[in-house]
Amino acid sequence: MARKRTPPPADLTYKSAGVDITANDRMVEKIRHALRRTYDPRVLSRHGAFAGLMRIDYSEALLRRNFREPILVSGADGVGSKLLVGMEHGRVRDLGIDLVAMNVNDVLTTGAEPLFFLDYVACHRLDPDEIAEIVTGISEGCTRARCALLGGETAELPDLYRKGHFDLAGFCVGVVDRPRIIDGPKLVEPGDVVLGLASSGLHSNGYALARKALARFPKSARLPVELGEPLVDAVLRPTRIYVKSILAVLQKYRRKRVIRAMAHITGGGLEGNIPRVIPRDCDVALKRGSWPIPPIFQLVQSAGVDEAEMYRVFNMGIGYVVIVRPLFANSVMHLLTKQGEKVYRIGVIRRGGGRLVWR
Amino acid sequence: MARKRTPPPADLTYKSAGVDITANDRMVEKIRHALRRTYDPRVLSRHGAFAGLMRIDYSEALLRRNFREPILVSGADGVGSKLLVGMEHGRVRDLGIDLVAMNVNDVLTTGAEPLFFLDYVACHRLDPDEIAEIVTGISEGCTRARCALLGGETAELPDLYRKGHFDLAGFCVGVVDRPRIIDGPKLVEPGDVVLGLASSGLHSNGYALARKALARFPKSARLPVELGEPLVDAVLRPTRIYVKSILAVLQKYRRKRVIRAMAHITGGGLEGNIPRVIPRDCDVALKRGSWPIPPIFQLVQSAGVDEAEMYRVFNMGIGYVVIVRPLFANSVMHLLTKQGEKVYRIGVIRRGGGRLVWR
Repeated sequence: MARKRTPPPADLTYKSAGVDITANDRMVEKIRHALRRTYDPRVLSRHGAFAGLMRIDYSEALLRRNFREPILVSGADGVGSKLLVGMEHGRVRDLGIDLVAMNVNDVLTTGAEPLFFLDYVACHRLDPDEIAEIVTGISEGCTRARCALLGGETAELPDLYRKGHFDLAGFCVGVVDRPRIIDGPKLVEPGDVVLGLASSGLHSNGYALARKALARFPKSARLPVELGEPLVDAVLRPTRIYVKSILAVLQKYRRKRVIRAMAHITGGGLEGNIPRVIPRDCDVALKRGSWPIPPIFQLVQSAGVDEAEMYRVFNMGIGYVVIVRPLFANSVMHLLTKQGEKVYRIGVIRRGGGRLVWR
Repeated sequence: MARKRTPPPADLTYKSAGVDITANDRMVEKIRHALRRTYDPRVLSRHGAFAGLMRIDYSEALLRRNFREPILVSGADGVGSKLLVGMEHGRVRDLGIDLVAMNVNDVLTTGAEPLFFLDYVACHRLDPDEIAEIVTGISEGCTRARCALLGGETAELPDLYRKGHFDLAGFCVGVVDRPRIIDGPKLVEPGDVVLGLASSGLHSNGYALARKALARFPKSARLPVELGEPLVDAVLRPTRIYVKSILAVLQKYRRKRVIRAMAHITGGGLEGNIPRVIPRDCDVALKRGSWPIPPIFQLVQSAGVDEAEMYRVFNMGIGYVVIVRPLFANSVMHLLTKQGEKVYRIGVIRRGGGRLVWR
């Protein structure tokens, strides 16, 4: 028993060791509302619970979906080096939107609707106001993605993170009825049309490279490419969340299943991501110039990045790809446009070897 | 269009910026088996998928549970400063077990069985062998917790993490049939018996303090407390996973619901965690000396930590608490012991004010 020993003057405390539990309590108080605003009747929230609870379906007859065989779809992702840009400029809120976007757009590609999201925030010292900013951004992202911010973890790791630094990880779970799973490699056929949805910019990939490239432009000098906005705004614009638009299409074409595959264009760019959702005996043939390359990509390239490398690393203006039956291409484009997306017909599916080719 | 500009010599690449995509491919190859071994027939695995898919129930008639109203239970957590001890000693595999344990033990408190787990590993430079070690540990943890390692994210953040440093975050989803949710504050009554399950040591909490305390003992000197094993072994022993034992009890007492509440003893210790699962008008009265305090806690305290602070920060030898109907206390203790747990009758529930008191 510990009582048996006579300890030296007890001078060590958890706080003196760098962990401030009261700061954590203040933070939890600050973010409570940010969580609540994302809840819907499916959330069974319990005070002080060790875990978050959520129903798969609504019990309200009007809203009920009655999944025949509900399949859970889950993804984990972070924001990457974009974090550092946000930290450097003291603009951290939108990073929360990026965090949600990176996860929900992945889950969405299977045809699933996001159910809930959890976050992991690790930092040097817990600054309740900064954490609240981040979680407010996460909450905004969850609202855009129509999913509940069910919970998360905030870790204070003074010996792992530098002063002012933090990392973000996110986890999303969605649900799709098994017969409606969108399994690209099984469904895509030659002749299918490839639609590209405009990205909002760099999204959250390639920042290790983008930062090094943009650092080559002296603060004072005029940029070689006209952005029409401050550079930092262009670089930090949050990743677009495609959930509402895509769910609208899936809902409208519930019976005839016109969407054959979807890809979230993240690390690896178009050639790294579209081939993941097509059959091995098909190619995806994209047409150069079929969509505008936003100036931010031109600027990064102009700093000295080979064009091929640009396409390997960045989304180049297309954040999400939808592969549809040719007959429905126009009506799907029309519906997505009505939903507020910029949509381009960027290519077609051909017989081939599972690669991306340019035509 | 990017083509319109004539860029300077294109010398910048993603790899030169610190991100090695081929290392990532090698890592993915190495960990494939570690994921597969955790799969069961509920996992619908798809090559190159953007997200992991899992069924809630088995379709095999023999195994089917037929949830009436399946509720998803989820939690997110990390390993905290224990990471740094593992890094310092080049022993990272068991940190993966800790990561799973911190999450599944939380989910378990609701009565849910863990379904799947996802991990987030962020590092300075992606070392395929080190990541494989970590993921092998995570896979071992998932096997102990009977959940599928459905996926995860590995992020290379050279400008955020120091050389040789990494962080881990985990995310677990479980399922429980709504009528079987264990909601302590609603179910616990005066007279209920508090059972404590032995921890395997410090588990994964309080390391910011434990490291500072233990650093006061010079490497050479003899420790004031006999551990019976090397200090590093005691400090790094992985967090115990209580899933199999607790699910066995829940399964045996499926009809008469003898478990009224469960608490995972993490940050905040016994007094921080047990009150979370009892009604506001009850106290949990624990008996000093009703379980042995493992030597590692005596050692940390002997370095100069006040005993009250010890109980606020550490689990002090009890890793998981089960509150049961008095009539069934002995039979539950017997079953848990048969499952391999060290179980102690550490207290009772009394009328009170929602606090932990000592008697």
